[in-house]
Amino acid sequence: MTTALFNRTPLLTEGNPELKRREIRDYFHTTQDRYEQLFETLKNDEAWYRKPIPLRHPLIFYYGHTATFFINKLVLAGLIDQRINPRFESMFAIGVDEMSWDDLNEANYDWPTVSEVRAYRAEMRRMVDGLIESLPLTLPIGWGSSWWPILMGIEHERIHLETSSVLIRQHDLKYIQPHPAWQPCRKSGETPKNTLVNIPSGRVKLGKQGDPTYGWDNEYGRHEADVPAFQAARHLTSNGEFLAFVENGGYADDTLWEEEGRAWKEFAKTQHPTFWVREGGAWKLRLMTEEVAMPWDWPVEVNYHEAKAFCNWKQRETGLPTRLPTEDQWVRLYDFAGLREVPHDQPANANLHLDHYASSCPVTEFRHGELFDAVGNVWQWTETPIYPFESFKVHPLYDDFTTPTFDDRHNLFKGGAWVSCGNEALKSARYAFRRHFFQHAGFRYVVSDAPVTVHASHYETDKLLSEYAEFHYGDTYFDVPNFPKALSELAINAMHGRPARKALDLGCAAGRATFELAKHFEHVTGIDFSARFIGLGVQLAEQGVLHYTLADEGELVFYQERRLAGLGLDDVRGKVEFWQGDACNLKPHFTGYDLILAANLIDRLYSPKKFLATVHERLNPGGILLIASPYTWLTEHTPREEWIGGFKQAGENLTTLDGLKAILGAHFRLIEDPFEMPFVIRETRRKFQHTLSEVTIWEKTG
Amino acid sequence: MTTALFNRTPLLTEGNPELKRREIRDYFHTTQDRYEQLFETLKNDEAWYRKPIPLRHPLIFYYGHTATFFINKLVLAGLIDQRINPRFESMFAIGVDEMSWDDLNEANYDWPTVSEVRAYRAEMRRMVDGLIESLPLTLPIGWGSSWWPILMGIEHERIHLETSSVLIRQHDLKYIQPHPAWQPCRKSGETPKNTLVNIPSGRVKLGKQGDPTYGWDNEYGRHEADVPAFQAARHLTSNGEFLAFVENGGYADDTLWEEEGRAWKEFAKTQHPTFWVREGGAWKLRLMTEEVAMPWDWPVEVNYHEAKAFCNWKQRETGLPTRLPTEDQWVRLYDFAGLREVPHDQPANANLHLDHYASSCPVTEFRHGELFDAVGNVWQWTETPIYPFESFKVHPLYDDFTTPTFDDRHNLFKGGAWVSCGNEALKSARYAFRRHFFQHAGFRYVVSDAPVTVHASHYETDKLLSEYAEFHYGDTYFDVPNFPKALSELAINAMHGRPARKALDLGCAAGRATFELAKHFEHVTGIDFSARFIGLGVQLAEQGVLHYTLADEGELVFYQERRLAGLGLDDVRGKVEFWQGDACNLKPHFTGYDLILAANLIDRLYSPKKFLATVHERLNPGGILLIASPYTWLTEHTPREEWIGGFKQAGENLTTLDGLKAILGAHFRLIEDPFEMPFVIRETRRKFQHTLSEVTIWEKTG
Repeated sequence: MTTALFNRTPLLTEGNPELKRREIRDYFHTTQDRYEQLFETLKNDEAWYRKPIPLRHPLIFYYGHTATFFINKLVLAGLIDQRINPRFESMFAIGVDEMSWDDLNEANYDWPTVSEVRAYRAEMRRMVDGLIESLPLTLPIGWGSSWWPILMGIEHERIHLETSSVLIRQHDLKYIQPHPAWQPCRKSGETPKNTLVNIPSGRVKLGKQGDPTYGWDNEYGRHEADVPAFQAARHLTSNGEFLAFVENGGYADDTLWEEEGRAWKEFAKTQHPTFWVREGGAWKLRLMTEEVAMPWDWPVEVNYHEAKAFCNWKQRETGLPTRLPTEDQWVRLYDFAGLREVPHDQPANANLHLDHYASSCPVTEFRHGELFDAVGNVWQWTETPIYPFESFKVHPLYDDFTTPTFDDRHNLFKGGAWVSCGNEALKSARYAFRRHFFQHAGFRYVVSDAPVTVHASHYETDKLLSEYAEFHYGDTYFDVPNFPKALSELAINAMHGRPARKALDLGCAAGRATFELAKHFEHVTGIDFSARFIGLGVQLAEQGVLHYTLADEGELVFYQERRLAGLGLDDVRGKVEFWQGDACNLKPHFTGYDLILAANLIDRLYSPKKFLATVHERLNPGGILLIASPYTWLTEHTPREEWIGGFKQAGENLTTLDGLKAILGAHFRLIEDPFEMPFVIRETRRKFQHTLSEVTIWEKTG
Repeated sequence: MTTALFNRTPLLTEGNPELKRREIRDYFHTTQDRYEQLFETLKNDEAWYRKPIPLRHPLIFYYGHTATFFINKLVLAGLIDQRINPRFESMFAIGVDEMSWDDLNEANYDWPTVSEVRAYRAEMRRMVDGLIESLPLTLPIGWGSSWWPILMGIEHERIHLETSSVLIRQHDLKYIQPHPAWQPCRKSGETPKNTLVNIPSGRVKLGKQGDPTYGWDNEYGRHEADVPAFQAARHLTSNGEFLAFVENGGYADDTLWEEEGRAWKEFAKTQHPTFWVREGGAWKLRLMTEEVAMPWDWPVEVNYHEAKAFCNWKQRETGLPTRLPTEDQWVRLYDFAGLREVPHDQPANANLHLDHYASSCPVTEFRHGELFDAVGNVWQWTETPIYPFESFKVHPLYDDFTTPTFDDRHNLFKGGAWVSCGNEALKSARYAFRRHFFQHAGFRYVVSDAPVTVHASHYETDKLLSEYAEFHYGDTYFDVPNFPKALSELAINAMHGRPARKALDLGCAAGRATFELAKHFEHVTGIDFSARFIGLGVQLAEQGVLHYTLADEGELVFYQERRLAGLGLDDVRGKVEFWQGDACNLKPHFTGYDLILAANLIDRLYSPKKFLATVHERLNPGGILLIASPYTWLTEHTPREEWIGGFKQAGENLTTLDGLKAILGAHFRLIEDPFEMPFVIRETRRKFQHTLSEVTIWEKTG
């Protein structure tokens, strides 16, 4: 074991700037040193160049990668303008690690020698040292600081310290040698009896606001929740406890597995935890540098699917609603256990931050109140797919750290393992992996009736839906006011004195006007022909938030989050409903409205005549119909014979306005002169549709 | 014959307003009366309902049509808001006469009775009388006046007075009866000998500017030309003179006919002029209400094709370059003959305006200086397809009077026939028909070496080309300055002090920047991949004018004319050239430039890398390269692997600007910070593309 404590992630808000400069340099150096020390466990040259598992690069890549990451971020931040070695930096740029995708380009890599990479790392270190020496430093250090990419590089290397330790653990033992700095725990014993602890209800607050340390983008923002009372296992599930599941045929019993887990299990032909080794009649456990007799009281290491199948089995055995904790429940456990961050000046009271072992240890060793291992030992899988907290923003220097994982397929794990250091060891850390991946991760089961909330995490990437999300809820361009909002205000003004019970937003698209109208009306129905558009409104009504990507140029995107609350519309969520429907053939019960808004609708209908000729049937006497349209007639939407204007009739120009007057005249009067209202739809960072929609406001007269 | 002179078209600039009101009322009434009198030549009911020729409506339509025309224009002008009879007005709206198209919708018309239509006409007359009584009248009366649609209705009826007289002449004689008010000339004699008159050169000025009378849109604007000396036949070609061509086998000899004429002749199986009737061994001539023994000294009546074939025959016989006059030559003949407009208070010295006969008369009867029938008797075909004079504008109340004939397939005829009255009888009148149509029209041949200029008349209707014509030469929208002009000014500013011999506008599209750069450079080459775009620049360079339609809404369009002169670019026409070419594979001789402008080009190339890597070879040392692009990368234009930015490379965002710097860095330096320049492309009246193009300016360093 190292004798000194492995440096903690620096506090960025306080202290003397010159001391802080020295602290960051030390943090950099010890991280570098510890990372290089990890590779000293490789026994021979082949160990560097053989892939530990098929879907990962060999370890030589990871040795170079953390240095290249520094260079890339420093170039991006404009702190350096010369690369060290463009060839290396192209080769070492894209890892395929557990943070990222699970496909590997099988290009024929011509890896450099270890000593070349070592020299490259040394050069990077000199370059960063130069920056640390010379950059002006003022506290606090925030997202925009020149120091942020340096801290990012260090924390990134600490992540790889852990993930590379997993790869070494997955490498054939013939390539690995023990190392004095990487000594496992030598204690083990019988399977401890696990029991349930009652966790009282409590409010949790998540989100790294005003936190004094470095964080990744997904940690920032706000999330609060009231967690009802539940029960939690006192200990992490041990190898011994898990053995009952294995011996009970748990891996063979498909009914215990979730669909995705079953597919993985069949593909992987798995019959026991990945680090378990069957030798003769006995189980052994693969550690980083050796195999040991199975320590039954250490935490079992599994992926989410195995943990989940265990819980399902446990539920079957006990009749209790057993599952993994949600992220909120995990935080409640942390709070309940009365934990604090790892102290800077003494060892953690947890198997964490390399303060004790280079392996797990018994689940009975670190007590935290009524629980054990509330943090540390192994990561704890949760039921929660990672999602952005409110006011999530992407850090511009690393815009794909988190966003590709917002897909409801990456679950969070919490608490850190024995090797989790720096940012990873913090309560606020939020790492998420595909549910079938392996890390030094296990689980604690809970007994809870509370449903698992899947938070909105998906970033809408469909071009049209994203454009409309931005059109309705996003920024304004060319100083053109938000169109559905402006129309809604017009409509509300036109109502003066009239009843305001029910409004219909027909052709509501992403639904902004539906919400806006609900400020004035008791109830607003949004209807659109496209169920995909409706989906945006439904998500906002249910979750209050939309995420989508905005095209920058080419394939590059920006990430956007929009919340009803930020638009002053959170209060009206209960007053809206959205339905898929056809304006030309509306179901009979959509009637009795005081207002019908038809924004950019009529020139997209297959039969505007039919719609216009019958729309009065849906309105109350004296009700208002507001139509806005650029009259962009296209045969792909509206057959030529269904156009209501925009052609010559009997030799004379018949405008759409003429056609509206002719058709609506029987039941409506125009109560204001028509006028044009502009709108802008953003296609890319530099390309926009800029359109004028003619607004006519009609009162139902008969 | 009528005893009083048929009213002349009123002067609209002078006189007492109340007397003018009375003059217009009289003009309206006498026109109405004379038109109704024409239909008194119909012998029976069947005469009204049988089509005289297959491609025209029966005469009942034309009886109602001129009344409906009044109603339609008055509605359009907002002078009345109630129609008289919507059913009639739908039925009588669209004629298929010689002014319009040659296809007839064979719908089953359920025509009303003659007395119903008569009553309808009377009601229209009362309505217009009411307007004439009550509308405020101030002089002059111009295009925007409320009186204009009334005058338009009257002049329109006078046109139909003539065209209906042709239909009656084409009707079977069994339907037609003589009428005292429609008595033909009774004089006829031997074929007069035709001789050539020397016409000295002279300048002609066309265009109804400041003219005191009503005119159709095509008469306005400016056109001036120097007409070189030529010879003209003293007389119109008589039936007798034309007989020689007929008897010489002219109709059978394909070599005498132009291609279009040959096709018509074969389709129509024509062997002699259309109103000639062969009876036994003798030729007779069909007049409006009777057939007479062939008056050999009357002008032959033919279409353009027959006239042209005669000229070709004449040329073969005489060896002299014989053809029809151009419009300019016809005006020169008018001026040479010393003619003036028909006087208001005495009969015309010409067989014109119904002042003498309801038929032609001998070509020897009306002498005009050394010529006979410089005007009157029959219309005279010209070689000139109708085209818009400079500053032509469409009248908003009748936007398809002329524009559909701007197709190089409608030739002008000039001078009027015996029945041409009002506007038709004026020197400025410009009527054009398809070359195979028949009116009371013949010709005078000329002997002239001067080539026939076909003026730019075609209105570009292709959506993309029209959009680009407007983008480059049209109005600005949303206060965004003209983009190619603004870029050219930037480029010229960037040149300060550098040589300015040759510039290259690569991806010139419609060519505006090519012209703009020629203000500063000695010579500018515009190159575009699209020959269709190049066509716009070529036409401007050659003719100085562009015509195109702009989408309004649906199928409705506006008509636009743009002239280099109006943009201050007429002086540089000689300094530009346009070529079709491929920026990725440019011919070797396109080199030695001081400036290369690449506006909105690179993201439309199939290999921008190749272009950018070699463009320095085309520039002189120290030369300037200006690139502007919104970086809208699309695989339909540029395969993904050819993009120079807009994607992640080695895990990091690579912008197009990064890519430009990387590729151009070897030979260029960026001499200014990049900035964005907006442009707007108008798609319809209300729909626009509004885009930002990033501008980078590079100096060639090596």
